[in-house]
Amino acid sequence: MKLKGDERIDQLYSQDIKIIQSPSVFSFSLDAVMLANFAEPKISKNSLLVDLCAGNGAVGLFLSHKTHGKIAEVEIQPKLSDMANRSVLLNGLEDQVTVYNDDLSQASQIFGKDSVDVVTVNPPYFSNLSTSKKNPNEYLAIARHEIKTDLRSVIQTSSDLLKTGGKLYMVYRPDRLHELMNVMTHFRLAIKRIQFIYPKVDRKSNMMLVSAIKDGKETGLNIDYPITVYQNGEYSKEVKKMLYGE
Amino acid sequence: MKLKGDERIDQLYSQDIKIIQSPSVFSFSLDAVMLANFAEPKISKNSLLVDLCAGNGAVGLFLSHKTHGKIAEVEIQPKLSDMANRSVLLNGLEDQVTVYNDDLSQASQIFGKDSVDVVTVNPPYFSNLSTSKKNPNEYLAIARHEIKTDLRSVIQTSSDLLKTGGKLYMVYRPDRLHELMNVMTHFRLAIKRIQFIYPKVDRKSNMMLVSAIKDGKETGLNIDYPITVYQNGEYSKEVKKMLYGE
Repeated sequence: MKLKGDERIDQLYSQDIKIIQSPSVFSFSLDAVMLANFAEPKISKNSLLVDLCAGNGAVGLFLSHKTHGKIAEVEIQPKLSDMANRSVLLNGLEDQVTVYNDDLSQASQIFGKDSVDVVTVNPPYFSNLSTSKKNPNEYLAIARHEIKTDLRSVIQTSSDLLKTGGKLYMVYRPDRLHELMNVMTHFRLAIKRIQFIYPKVDRKSNMMLVSAIKDGKETGLNIDYPITVYQNGEYSKEVKKMLYGE
Repeated sequence: MKLKGDERIDQLYSQDIKIIQSPSVFSFSLDAVMLANFAEPKISKNSLLVDLCAGNGAVGLFLSHKTHGKIAEVEIQPKLSDMANRSVLLNGLEDQVTVYNDDLSQASQIFGKDSVDVVTVNPPYFSNLSTSKKNPNEYLAIARHEIKTDLRSVIQTSSDLLKTGGKLYMVYRPDRLHELMNVMTHFRLAIKRIQFIYPKVDRKSNMMLVSAIKDGKETGLNIDYPITVYQNGEYSKEVKKMLYGE
């Protein structure tokens, strides 16, 4: 496997997956590990899971052990989708995982409407306000800020793709929960579970994992047990398990 | 102080408050302690705090140490408001705390619209469905099920009472978060903080504390650090502090 520029190969030990990373372009973060851990893909061989805003493909790769179905990764940035593609080959997963270098607005045309069992997405979290501080690195700015897409487009595309009863798993920021609920309702997605992630004990949540169902009822929301990332100055038992296995 | 029937006097040690309780009529629960702990009343002498669905008056009494202002308790059930009234006397708080035996729909007429600084409420949580199991004890059924009031009425009354910028502090069930957000938005209340309560480690949340501001912006929601009630078979450090003080 040929590495480019400052790329290196990292490993997620709990899943035995190797990922091509680049400090100057994109590296997956704990968000991706947690999203893959939270998501419940359909297991069957003829199922289809689409990972939007796929970055260097971490979420799709981490999920490959949880399903016998096909996984499609959609990433708009050519450098990132190229990294994702080489990581698929590196893990010998080319029969299961396919990378698409495209805008997510094209996803319905690629896969067809109402045709996907599960969508996962770790979208840009931050509004693209002219006043907001953005990363001077364009790759990272696009991954974090709503420059190429926004919440509404992400949710609309997810809803378009999903079959009735299909599931969306997403990582997002708690301070935008209200907006998320409104947009999801508008696009026929009902939130069923939220798991809040807290950086440390006694700190407010800075991340949440959300699962929603297409055309589901907006009742019976479950707030899963909380995950605290750091405890006593090191990763908590739960996070260690996600990263390194049991 | 004359006790009636099976009444007894309990004490919240952390606040040095005595409360008349009755197993067959009403006893305050941890909800009330947590709501009083979560709420941030205005401190000034000319402020007004109204506690709706006051039950035996626990929340208003627990809050009396946190403000120099007046506290009004509104409770529809005569037996409960009578207990609340005697608890006020028992603690010598009759100059600060007043109990009103009335339906909360009358609250705007009693206090005036746009006149209250802070509202606290621990309303009935459960929908009054014909299929839902209710407590055969009518006092408890009314306290827990939406028999005499419902979420919409509680939120509308709270909004009517509050000044612009006034705060609502409420305890509610997480599975109705979506509905709560919609109703609050409708009545000009923006949620600013939610703190989820978990009964035990690794269990989903069964209670949440919510603060909202009248005519506030629906952005910047904070999810406060989580509270777990039981840890290792006893109350957690945090809950012990609320109950027994430092």
